[in-house]
Order: sequence, then structure tokens, then C-alpha cells
Amino acid sequence: MANYFSSNFTLGILGGGQLGKMLLYETRKFDIKTHVLDPSYEAPCKIACDAFQQGDLMDYDTVYNFGKKVDVLTFEIEGVNIDALAKLEAEGKKVYPSAETLKNIQDKGVQKQFYKQHKIPTSPFLVFKDKFELTEAIVRKDLSFPFVWKSCTGGYDGKGVSVVRTEEDVIPLAEGACIAEKLISFKNELAVIVVRNPSGEVKTYPVVEMEFHPEANQVEYVICPARIDDSVSEKARNIAIKVSEAFKHVGLLAVELFQTEDDEILVNEVAPRPHNSGHYSIEASYTNQFEQQIRAILDLPLGKTESKVGGIMVNLVGAEGHTGEVVYKNIEKIMAMDGVTPHIYGKKQTRPFRKMGHVTIVHEDLAEARKIAEKVKNTIEVVAK
Amino acid sequence: MANYFSSNFTLGILGGGQLGKMLLYETRKFDIKTHVLDPSYEAPCKIACDAFQQGDLMDYDTVYNFGKKVDVLTFEIEGVNIDALAKLEAEGKKVYPSAETLKNIQDKGVQKQFYKQHKIPTSPFLVFKDKFELTEAIVRKDLSFPFVWKSCTGGYDGKGVSVVRTEEDVIPLAEGACIAEKLISFKNELAVIVVRNPSGEVKTYPVVEMEFHPEANQVEYVICPARIDDSVSEKARNIAIKVSEAFKHVGLLAVELFQTEDDEILVNEVAPRPHNSGHYSIEASYTNQFEQQIRAILDLPLGKTESKVGGIMVNLVGAEGHTGEVVYKNIEKIMAMDGVTPHIYGKKQTRPFRKMGHVTIVHEDLAEARKIAEKVKNTIEVVAK
Repeated sequence: MANYFSSNFTLGILGGGQLGKMLLYETRKFDIKTHVLDPSYEAPCKIACDAFQQGDLMDYDTVYNFGKKVDVLTFEIEGVNIDALAKLEAEGKKVYPSAETLKNIQDKGVQKQFYKQHKIPTSPFLVFKDKFELTEAIVRKDLSFPFVWKSCTGGYDGKGVSVVRTEEDVIPLAEGACIAEKLISFKNELAVIVVRNPSGEVKTYPVVEMEFHPEANQVEYVICPARIDDSVSEKARNIAIKVSEAFKHVGLLAVELFQTEDDEILVNEVAPRPHNSGHYSIEASYTNQFEQQIRAILDLPLGKTESKVGGIMVNLVGAEGHTGEVVYKNIEKIMAMDGVTPHIYGKKQTRPFRKMGHVTIVHEDLAEARKIAEKVKNTIEVVAK
Repeated sequence: MANYFSSNFTLGILGGGQLGKMLLYETRKFDIKTHVLDPSYEAPCKIACDAFQQGDLMDYDTVYNFGKKVDVLTFEIEGVNIDALAKLEAEGKKVYPSAETLKNIQDKGVQKQFYKQHKIPTSPFLVFKDKFELTEAIVRKDLSFPFVWKSCTGGYDGKGVSVVRTEEDVIPLAEGACIAEKLISFKNELAVIVVRNPSGEVKTYPVVEMEFHPEANQVEYVICPARIDDSVSEKARNIAIKVSEAFKHVGLLAVELFQTEDDEILVNEVAPRPHNSGHYSIEASYTNQFEQQIRAILDLPLGKTESKVGGIMVNLVGAEGHTGEVVYKNIEKIMAMDGVTPHIYGKKQTRPFRKMGHVTIVHEDLAEARKIAEKVKNTIEVVAK
């Protein structure tokens, strides 16, 4: 085994956002050297890495030259130059997840076709190379309302996704390549994080549940474990493992799933990295997702994925009508509540719906955690000064 | 309340060792700005703070000028210039713990006299202004063997402490001011971490137990909760609170205690900062001691001190006969064990008995954790390359 701890071994991370920042808690804990590349000089990862480089993640030369200097290369965001990753791999560099895995995930059209080829259950879909093709399909009645429109690339945190119910909804859609998916009527939106190391050790985290606001149709709480039958949970974990194997994935793979009205499990989409649906793990799990990612990509033994206690995660997003220097109003009030930990990502400017942090609520009794989570949600506000 | 989160508020930390390093995980989590002062340019805190300054912690001007630039000043090591702290306080700077508290703790002779004045149970002792006075007392039979010798200042991690059984044991003792304590025959060595914020909120962590090696008389495991009767535990927590109140202490106070053969509780010594006996809390507690320290000194509400699971801590110290660039032999083997997390402090050079890191073992069943802890201890080795 390579000597990673307090040595000259260097892990390179493409992307320096909040996921990278939380990854750095773990590299610090293990005293593993890190280099981070991010376009913003104000990236949350700016400190706590050994070397920070400002640069374009989609630029071939920038990514290639950055990768040359490190021993293992990983990413915390999918929007990176795959050709540079492939070239580095061809030259013998360890890149996890691999360029091939990312190629099958980065473009949502390719991702959906991958599921079809590998007989992984997913909602019916059509792929279009641009908006013109999409509108043609509507005109020809090859595609009917309602459907879910997704941009093939660049979607993130709810951007690049729309439910299209009428011709009017088509107007604001972006011009580029897209997919149209059947709108699924589901009981629950679930997620499973699978982790695999290069030696082939595989584990899954418990199934988590996204609880939606009854009116706003927005995820309000990520709940671990999901309040579902064991049989559904087992089915979800098995499908997630199948997905991970099909992608020959190394590291963390967050698999988002629908539980349909008749308890079928469909794969919605995946993220080959630490994921919002796993943030609860920092406080609730024996091994949090960020430590697990480090273990996996360095081919160390995987840690225990079970939970110590029930965990609920609430995103902290910028309040509507507030743009400017951020203030976390009433944060001291939520910190007085039982088992509540805020995580502040370090973005100085708030904007409506910008993801600024998250709050974890842990409790032995999940129902109690759920009550506290609601209080948290109703108390803290992310506003401008 | 001041706005600490993603603001210009700055916390100053005197000392940049492993305790500071673990404190910085929490300031990063809350996005609180930090400045760190440490004599070594290779300090574990070098990265992850917003500004690192190299300088002498005992130098008045260095500490004073460092303190002037921050909003709240704290320390992670007792060996700092108290006059500079007092001057900063007099000028209105918030210093936690205060100069007065530290003055009563920094010198072990003063600390013991403080317990006597405040009727806090502690072992009988004598204070000597130098080694000459000590030897005189032995000659005059004012002091008889065996006794525990402690240097009044500079003691740390077992340095500056000796059990003196014969005249021969007196020879190697240092020249400076010292105390001689009655050698207590105890059942258990316990510790309680008390936390208080400036608003007066007080909490205690569960009592932990130091388990000694049966032959080597060296602490091998810190076990939480201690395997003692509830009545002893309650007594220990109450005495710890009394100690904290007497010191008018703000922040964390680690109170080391003896449980005598007849279940009396005696205060051994205290540390006004995060402490080795609280490291288990990172994995086992609802609020780890480092987050709790931040909450306390910023006058935020204190977090829950209960444990989620049983926790055991094993120190990683340099193996005998090994000096040089460190290698953590078999670390991948302990990482394959259930609920095991290594913490590597980031010191590049190992020396016999140097504290290089620690390992936490958590398990629902404390007896199971204890078994795994023994396996950890027998597996990992801190050696030179």
C-alpha cells in the first residue's frame, strides 16, 4: 500500500466548492496532502488544502497540467474536462472515478441510454440534440404533455430541469441537447449512496428519503433512514449496487431513485461524488461520506455505513428577495435545539435559493428529529445584511 | 449577538498544535475566520486557518500584538504570556479563558493552593520554590517517600511528573519550583470535561475513565462512559462543576480526578482547553469538544454533551527505538476494523513516545469497543521509515 499519511503523496481535487471543503476535513484528519483546482479565487476550498490553483475545470491543458502534479486525481463536480482525465489515465495516472465512468454520467442523454443498455429500470425517455428537435417531436405528437425536460449538460441543484405541462412551458427552455422523460407519479423520492474501492469492496449506505413540501414541490428534508418497508429498502439498495457495477464506478455514487405508486424502483439519476443526500452522515453515520470517499479512492478498507442515530438534513438556501452579504438570522436559536449542527459553506454573498449551507438534526428517535427539523426550518433565515 | 458566520469577525488562537488543528475543523464548519500564532512554521495549524503567524507564545509583545488584531482571543496550550492576556483584557478585548483563570492554573503550585483555598478535595501537597528547598524538606523529614513530584511549570504529556520512591529518584529531578504530592492509591483515574459560556450556561460531559496498562503504569485507553457506579459518576461531575465555578472558567475545562479506594473523589489537575480525554467526542458525542469550545467562547448556546455510542480513544505515540520520518505501519489494517477512525496530527518526525495521533473506536456496545481497541493497540505501529 502507498503511504498516504503525513507523506508526500498528493491527492488532486477538481472543484473547490462545499463538497470539496467537507472532503478536506477528512484529508486534514488523515494528514493527506491535497491540491485543489477551482475557477473561483473565493472557493470554499481556498484554505485547508496544501495548494490551491485558480483555473478552468473545462480547459484541457489546465486540468491535464494540474493532474500531472498529483498522485491520485478525483473531482467533486461533474463539469470537468473528460479528455484530460482520459489522457492522464492513459499515461498511468490514477483517476477516480474514471474518465469512462464520468463519460457515461456527465451527459444526461448518454446516462439514460446507458440505463437502457444495462437493463436498469428508469423512466421512459427521448433524447433530442437541440430544442428544435424537441419542438418537432411535440408537433408530430411523438412527445406529449406532461413531461420532464432535462438539459443534457450543466444541470445542477434543480437548474436544467423543468416539468413541461403546456406549450407555454416550452418557451423558456434552453436551446441545447436535452431529454424528455415521462413524468412519474411516485410515492417517494429515495437515494442510496454506494461506495466501491478499486479492490472491489462494495458497501451501501441506508436508503434516505426526500420529503417534499406539500405545496411548493421542493425537497425540504433528507431523512435517514427512509420511512419505507424493508423490502423496498432492500430492492433500492440492490438496484443501486447494480448501477454502480454497471458504471464500473470507484468512489461514492449517489443513486437517486423513485419509488412508484406500485413500489417499483426507478433510477432517476446519479452523481459520482459526495452528495447532498449524504450530508446527514457527518453527524449520523459511523463513517461519513467524505471520509468514505477518501477511503474508497485510495483503495483503503471501506468504513461502516450504518448510522449511530437517526439523521435529518435541511438545506440552507438564500431567502427570496435577498441578495447581498449573507447573515444567518436566528442561527443561535437553532443551535440551542437538541442535536442541531449548522454547516456554513462560506459563500459571502446570498441570492434567492443559493445553497449556502445545511443543518443536520440527529436524534435516537427519528420522529423526534423530524419535529426538531421542522422547528429549524421555521426558525433560521438566510438573508442579506 | 455578534455575527460570527461568514463575517469579518476573527477568532485568535494561541498555539497551533493538534488541539488547534481539530478546533479549526469546527471554525471551518461554521465559516468563522481564524488567526493562529505558533512558534513552529511546521505547526499542524499552518493550513486551514485564515492567517498563520510564527512567533513566541511566551513573548509579551508578540502575544499582545497578535491579540490586538482579533475579536476574541483563546489558547490551545497553557504556556502563553499571561501579562499580555491581562493587558488585552484591560483594554476591552475578550479573552477566554481569562488571564485570571489561567494564572490560577498555569503554575501547579498556585493551582494546588487554589484548591485548598476553595475547599476542593485534592491530595495533600507541599510547594517548594526550588530543588534545594525540596531536598532540605526530605533531610528534615518534613517530606517522606514515596511522593509525586511535579514541576510547577512546563509540564505536559507526562513530562515534569515523577513518582519519587527513594533518594536516588531525587537526583534526576529538575531544579525549578515544584510540588510534592502524597502518592494516592486510587481505583480509577477519571476525567470530566465541564463547559461554560460567558452567559453562565454550564454542562458536563460524561465521566471518562483512563485504563492503565497493568504493568507499564501508562494510560492505554480513555473510555467513555467510565465503568463506574452512577453515584461516583454524579459525585465526579459535581466536583468538576464546583472546580469550574471556582475558576470562573469560560470554555472547556478538563478536570482530571482520582477515585480513591474508598470512593472519594480528589482533583488531580485541570486543563483549561480541549483535552486528550475528550477526543473520543469527535465520533461519539452529539457535540464534540472542539465544536463545544467554539460555542462556549463565542457565547453561543452549548450543545448536547451526551454520547450517541460508546467511545474509546487510544493514543498513537512514537514507538521506542524509532526516530525519523514517520510511517503508520498497519494503519490500513485498523481501518478495516469496525468503527475505527485514526486521527493523524501531521507531525512529520516521530520520536519515542511523541504523541503523533489518536484512534477512536466507537460501538453501541462499549465492551465490544474495548475488544476492538485492544486489537487496534496491538496492530498499528508508529515507526520511522
